[in-house]
Amino acid sequence: MSATNETARLIGVGVGPGDPELLTLKALRALREADVVAHFAKSGNASNARAIAASHFKPGVTELALLYPVTTEIPKDTPAYCGKVGEFFDGCAAAVAAHLDAQRSVAVICEGDPLFYGSYMHLHVRLAPRYSTEVIAGVTGMSGCWSAIGSPIAQGDDVFTVLPATLPEGELARRLADADAAVVMKLGRNLAKVRRALDRAGRLGRAIYVERGTMADAVAMRLADKAGDCAPYFAIVLVPGWEGRA
Amino acid sequence: MSATNETARLIGVGVGPGDPELLTLKALRALREADVVAHFAKSGNASNARAIAASHFKPGVTELALLYPVTTEIPKDTPAYCGKVGEFFDGCAAAVAAHLDAQRSVAVICEGDPLFYGSYMHLHVRLAPRYSTEVIAGVTGMSGCWSAIGSPIAQGDDVFTVLPATLPEGELARRLADADAAVVMKLGRNLAKVRRALDRAGRLGRAIYVERGTMADAVAMRLADKAGDCAPYFAIVLVPGWEGRA
Repeated sequence: MSATNETARLIGVGVGPGDPELLTLKALRALREADVVAHFAKSGNASNARAIAASHFKPGVTELALLYPVTTEIPKDTPAYCGKVGEFFDGCAAAVAAHLDAQRSVAVICEGDPLFYGSYMHLHVRLAPRYSTEVIAGVTGMSGCWSAIGSPIAQGDDVFTVLPATLPEGELARRLADADAAVVMKLGRNLAKVRRALDRAGRLGRAIYVERGTMADAVAMRLADKAGDCAPYFAIVLVPGWEGRA
Repeated sequence: MSATNETARLIGVGVGPGDPELLTLKALRALREADVVAHFAKSGNASNARAIAASHFKPGVTELALLYPVTTEIPKDTPAYCGKVGEFFDGCAAAVAAHLDAQRSVAVICEGDPLFYGSYMHLHVRLAPRYSTEVIAGVTGMSGCWSAIGSPIAQGDDVFTVLPATLPEGELARRLADADAAVVMKLGRNLAKVRRALDRAGRLGRAIYVERGTMADAVAMRLADKAGDCAPYFAIVLVPGWEGRA
């Protein structure tokens, strides 16, 4: 019930970008020891984090699937959307807390790095004040992508920026022109806009499009060479810096 | 001699931010298999990457220490400095190439992630066009830091930026005010300037100072609470985003 309890323990476990070998030794140990493994997924979909890590779960482990509600009918940035999302994470935290109160250790597995754009942090802010908590850093999706294609991303005094493709086109163009190196995430239906913003920023020629970066069926190409503006949500665009190579 | 050779292989191996358990399974395999392990260090200093990874080297492995020249007497951003640095990396690449030409596999170990502000990329751009090459992503130093202190860094549509503390104060202040979340690296003698820039940007209250982030003797505190402006070069400042928590 309190942070002094010896067995109740919340662990946010980064399982890396997709390649099961990019799991850390620390994550492996946490997975083998956890009484309960929790994972987020869209309702009706398998958890990507689970697919990466499941072979390491303790035999007979209890699994807790945390299924995002379908909220596509509610516009984002509205109080109704935030309220629904907040309620969802409150419910997830309560489900995890029930295991912690029963003196179980709970590993919440997360693709990439738990505190870098991950859902785990919604549980962390709700539970870390009350329970013994540890976060195990993971290899991010973007590191997996630039490593898979062997493209140096930033060096020396480069300014590096991560931008969501959901920003307005002018804002994207301004920020792309203002950074030495950039990653644009959440492409999905925003790829045409991102392409125009890169062009306005004079960076389209350097941009690389990457799909399923650390999977066996990865796709990478110069964005300028990509036909069409169809992209999955988790595709990213890399704009390598380090223009004055030494 | 060519990319079709079966045993000559260059591998950039990220060994993570410091905690030896934050090594990936893939890095572990590469270390156990490599004929030669190369590591960068300042002349007269031990390699941090070596300290993290050495227990996994193959017995009898050949080690290749790549020792940075002492260039403090030459101002940075001058042709003389860039020339000297370029010559150093040319020499390193030649030393690695000699092993590759002898059909050996060479793992170049790097703290953090090899293609994210790492010295490895200087070898990569010189050798990857000529030899079979692989890069193994690692957990970055900054991920290690925010995980060690349990501080969510960015969420949702946050813009995240990495800034070198070497930028001019006004430029730092402008960029800190323009990002939702930020990391300031290379503190060293720049901490007083970074503190003033954060204050001008209205972000000093959120800034967290972290020293030796994933070591046993880590230090973390609100920057506003830190007495004095003395900081080691590898200390960082985190400015967490996600201000509208759901």
